Amino acid sequence: MAQLTRIEIRAPYLVLIGDTEDPTYAKTGYGLVHWQPERVLGQLRFPGCGADLGVPDMDIAQARALGAQSLVIGVAPAGGVIPRNWYQAIEEAARAGLDIVCGLHIRLHDLSGVVEAAKASGARLIDVRVPPSDIPVASGRKRSGYRLLTVGTDCAIGKKYAALGITRAMQAAGIPATFRATGQTGIMLAGEGIPIDSVVADFIAGAAEVLSPDNEPGHWDVIEGQGTLFHPAYSGVALGLLHGSQPDAFVVCHEATRTRVSGWEEYTLPSVGECIERHLELGRRTNPGIRCVGVSVNTSGLLPAERETWLADLAQETGLPCIDPLIDGCDRIVEGIQTTYGVRAP
Amino acid sequence: MAQLTRIEIRAPYLVLIGDTEDPTYAKTGYGLVHWQPERVLGQLRFPGCGADLGVPDMDIAQARALGAQSLVIGVAPAGGVIPRNWYQAIEEAARAGLDIVCGLHIRLHDLSGVVEAAKASGARLIDVRVPPSDIPVASGRKRSGYRLLTVGTDCAIGKKYAALGITRAMQAAGIPATFRATGQTGIMLAGEGIPIDSVVADFIAGAAEVLSPDNEPGHWDVIEGQGTLFHPAYSGVALGLLHGSQPDAFVVCHEATRTRVSGWEEYTLPSVGECIERHLELGRRTNPGIRCVGVSVNTSGLLPAERETWLADLAQETGLPCIDPLIDGCDRIVEGIQTTYGVRAP
Repeated sequence: MAQLTRIEIRAPYLVLIGDTEDPTYAKTGYGLVHWQPERVLGQLRFPGCGADLGVPDMDIAQARALGAQSLVIGVAPAGGVIPRNWYQAIEEAARAGLDIVCGLHIRLHDLSGVVEAAKASGARLIDVRVPPSDIPVASGRKRSGYRLLTVGTDCAIGKKYAALGITRAMQAAGIPATFRATGQTGIMLAGEGIPIDSVVADFIAGAAEVLSPDNEPGHWDVIEGQGTLFHPAYSGVALGLLHGSQPDAFVVCHEATRTRVSGWEEYTLPSVGECIERHLELGRRTNPGIRCVGVSVNTSGLLPAERETWLADLAQETGLPCIDPLIDGCDRIVEGIQTTYGVRAP
Repeated sequence: MAQLTRIEIRAPYLVLIGDTEDPTYAKTGYGLVHWQPERVLGQLRFPGCGADLGVPDMDIAQARALGAQSLVIGVAPAGGVIPRNWYQAIEEAARAGLDIVCGLHIRLHDLSGVVEAAKASGARLIDVRVPPSDIPVASGRKRSGYRLLTVGTDCAIGKKYAALGITRAMQAAGIPATFRATGQTGIMLAGEGIPIDSVVADFIAGAAEVLSPDNEPGHWDVIEGQGTLFHPAYSGVALGLLHGSQPDAFVVCHEATRTRVSGWEEYTLPSVGECIERHLELGRRTNPGIRCVGVSVNTSGLLPAERETWLADLAQETGLPCIDPLIDGCDRIVEGIQTTYGVRAP
């Protein structure tokens, strides 16, 4: 039976975001700083960088002197490739004895300069985005326990954030819950998971089944969504994950002011309502009882005065709890789940 | 820029179907015999085989004596894995100097016994299901020329057959058309293509874009569908292919008497109407002009007397040409396309 990808990263980290112009692509770095700030020492940026993780800037020598154990590549650009000019910094870090942690489609073990530098210093090379080798074809069999999947109107729109927030809110409410990571940042945070977009296409749904096996009745697996059904490049990942997860419940993630697909600007975003409808329609295929249980909205683009009205209107339209997880937390979504599924704190 | 997977297979072939019980899984063998009978010398079966390709049975020595150049593995079981007891026959064929052609997820180059035998005899090992290495993420950009995708209510339901039939009917009508192969059998027949279900999940739609590049106005790429949106295991492949192909037109493939997903019997098949609706709804995302242009039905399970009524009822319900390609050919679908798209024989 296929196992999850398991990793162990030595803290504290220096996070490399280089000369990333669009902060959206530095989401791995932001995720690490937000969810595990105690493990992040600083950031390594190059001239022209448009992102700022809000932690001290430092170079490799400084980080080493302050006790850094790992250099974590903190970006997730489209296609998973980083610019050639970053390799020099990665090699330097490996030479200085920092473990290198990479969640991109490129593999550290394929970069001969990095491999050599790591060999000389004894640094470890950790490729997070390597799926297990023996993932089965999905069986379609119903599994025990509950599952919640976070989905989105776009990529990089808060699916990981919502899944982590809901998991913590469930645990705080006494509901047994496990965060199930499907992307590089989630796996770095959880220490295990399956990089679902790196799986061979025939095995996407099978990977989702392995990720979230049978569990106790009343236990929730909260599965991090990937891609979106509406994406011109990544919809296949999203549908395979939806069908293999067989979610009982899903939460739609959205950004209040985003109207176009990030990086594919000729494509408009679907409405939240359309996103809900499409997931119900397709999700019923493997779980006839699927429901939408809330909408998680990034409202940072709205004026503070607009925020509440915007969310109230959406709640009116959808009949669901609509929250900004950064501001409101996820408790209202979890309360709704308790009411609907009859799960209560012990 | 990524290229198609290109292969050259030396004829004539001995086709291995071993002890396959369900003829559905011998579809590669049936496809080769149907579309390129002049290249098939015979079949190699083991006791208990439930399939018959209708060509002479022979063992490896007999095939060699009759001039066979290649042993083609003629099955496509779920998950792409063959039983261990077949390896002996494959090794024997390689030892006898036959090229080995394999379109499964397993790789011949990973089978040490086969590799050694081939080395000793000079036989070639041809893994058809190896995608190009540098497939890009899909751009979503509209391409010139027309595209038709065959889709289905299930796997192994005639998508390749319909695509090949429509390509030939278009060519016979003087319409410039190219068959675009996405599966092992199609690639063996065409000599090129991309094994779309073997691509890493993030690149499914990108592979479809590479498979069917810009072409002349009025030219049709007829793209072989894979999987189905309704499949508990393979829906991700189907949606990525739909979005990346950006089809102007699609044809639904169905089997008149099939009511359950082959191999996943707890799942019922969607109706043809639901299949059309779902493809229109999702396909509009990358091609707002997408239309369904016909239904291709395997009616072999019906009594001859029922056949015409069954197809006429479906035509009435859908308003589309509904044909059995084995009996009726694909001309009526192509005539409809000529009317709709204004393409005419020169």
